[in-house]
Amino acid sequence: MPTLVARAREGDARSVARLISLVENGDPRLPEVAAALAPYAGRAQVVGLTGSPGVGKSTTTNELVRALRAAGHRVGVLAVDPSSPFTGGAILGDRIRMQDHTTDPGVYIRSMSSRGQLGGLAAATPQAVRVLEGAGCDVVLVETVGVGQAEVEIASLADTTLVLLAPGMGDAIQAVKAGILEIADVFVVNKADRPGADATYRDIQGMLSLGERGPGEWRPQVVRAVAVRGEGLDEVVAAIEKHRAWLESDGRLQARREARAAAEVEAIALGTLRARLGSLRDGTALSDLAARVAAGGLDPYAAADELIKGL
Amino acid sequence: MPTLVARAREGDARSVARLISLVENGDPRLPEVAAALAPYAGRAQVVGLTGSPGVGKSTTTNELVRALRAAGHRVGVLAVDPSSPFTGGAILGDRIRMQDHTTDPGVYIRSMSSRGQLGGLAAATPQAVRVLEGAGCDVVLVETVGVGQAEVEIASLADTTLVLLAPGMGDAIQAVKAGILEIADVFVVNKADRPGADATYRDIQGMLSLGERGPGEWRPQVVRAVAVRGEGLDEVVAAIEKHRAWLESDGRLQARREARAAAEVEAIALGTLRARLGSLRDGTALSDLAARVAAGGLDPYAAADELIKGL
Repeated sequence: MPTLVARAREGDARSVARLISLVENGDPRLPEVAAALAPYAGRAQVVGLTGSPGVGKSTTTNELVRALRAAGHRVGVLAVDPSSPFTGGAILGDRIRMQDHTTDPGVYIRSMSSRGQLGGLAAATPQAVRVLEGAGCDVVLVETVGVGQAEVEIASLADTTLVLLAPGMGDAIQAVKAGILEIADVFVVNKADRPGADATYRDIQGMLSLGERGPGEWRPQVVRAVAVRGEGLDEVVAAIEKHRAWLESDGRLQARREARAAAEVEAIALGTLRARLGSLRDGTALSDLAARVAAGGLDPYAAADELIKGL
Repeated sequence: MPTLVARAREGDARSVARLISLVENGDPRLPEVAAALAPYAGRAQVVGLTGSPGVGKSTTTNELVRALRAAGHRVGVLAVDPSSPFTGGAILGDRIRMQDHTTDPGVYIRSMSSRGQLGGLAAATPQAVRVLEGAGCDVVLVETVGVGQAEVEIASLADTTLVLLAPGMGDAIQAVKAGILEIADVFVVNKADRPGADATYRDIQGMLSLGERGPGEWRPQVVRAVAVRGEGLDEVVAAIEKHRAWLESDGRLQARREARAAAEVEAIALGTLRARLGSLRDGTALSDLAARVAAGGLDPYAAADELIKGL
């Protein structure tokens, strides 16, 4: 493992890919990988990127990578698909555009699912970020599909969260519904050349002006873009860098990362405990208790207490 | 608590509401409530209802409640909003229609969020279902907003899962992306009077015909509806009842409920363990370890091991 990590550090793409596979599959050697990567923690700005299907996430990610590269960044991309526990990954078409960057040694792109990892993507994603940090990426984009609790969780792993919107999708309202108004550091109104883009832009600005903000608090930026023509991405990069500068003032980045590390450690610990609970008495402890609960002879809290006693 | 449960059993709506509030807020008396409710476990058919925003979920739920009442069922509705950890609830407008049923003593309707409950909605929802079962509901509809991993988890708590689609939203494809094709027992193509409804119907039937199905396996039903005019809901009820009959054959319902109880017990146990981890050394154990991880001096797996040792 230390050799593999050393090779990844030198920029060997295959080693990076192997390490992320280990993470994704919940390989038993993960703790060893994590130990070898620990010293490089916190070197990258982790940028979450989310939005409903159809807002142009893949195109925007693609063009954002281009703009970040032009600004001199080494970039890692994790395309995470938490909404698909079954198919376990993204649909092919979405990823094709990303091939634009396959020959650029300063870009690592990877689709991820949470198949093997206990604790799901909440546990796997930060480990994959660590791999990309170790490989020298100073910006790691974490792209999530759809909008839901899993996205919010993953956004909480990011230093900076971009929320993509597009005109005419009722997205401003959906953003409120899904609670993403609270998680967005930067809004990108994509497809800004289409009818309704100004209304979407105004809706978001209007909603932001309603929120109370203390002095020194971040006011989410709203940027217009036409990703398919590569327009507006430099402004997105500028907003990301501005947010980074804000984070670095007053120890905010430090505090955010400690909170992130706490969530990460907790997720790993719960994953381990879950595995232990599941394997008590060769896995029969839980199923026996469950049978009694289903039959009405035991309540689930009493059953949970009994299960924990077995630890 | 036993008195409150006894009153809820007699159909007292305020007692039902109070019990669900206890569940929602993660009240410390929950184990006592659960113990009092245990004997009534498994009396209701739990029907999950999900779909993207805009497919007409609220209207469909409203009309489905009407159709279920007409078929002689006592109905509970839990409107669950897992996508909003922040706002902690559904947007008002969505719920207004539900007031159609507020004067019907055979219907309990409740919006839920997961604010107080450790383990989130995965832990809270089954407890709320138990309350409604205890109150004599023989069908409990669990309506979730949006499509994501949380929805899939909640669908796994249901005996029967309805997935709502509407024409012209690219929903058939989104269904595949989100993995909901695998969880649906009944598809409802709502707004079936609109252009594109036949195409959506055919898409779904086409995708279903691609799936391999062993003998005796359930083939998801596809039903057309125009919920806003109350059309097609009797067919939805028939599909739900057909699925119930299928579940009851060959011990499937029993197996599904034991699996559900196992997930429930596990979620409660993990919630308890999470609380214990968080309170180790007055809550400083986790934050101290997290600070070391963020600083690069410790890897998160080693930190998780150390945390668990403190239990």
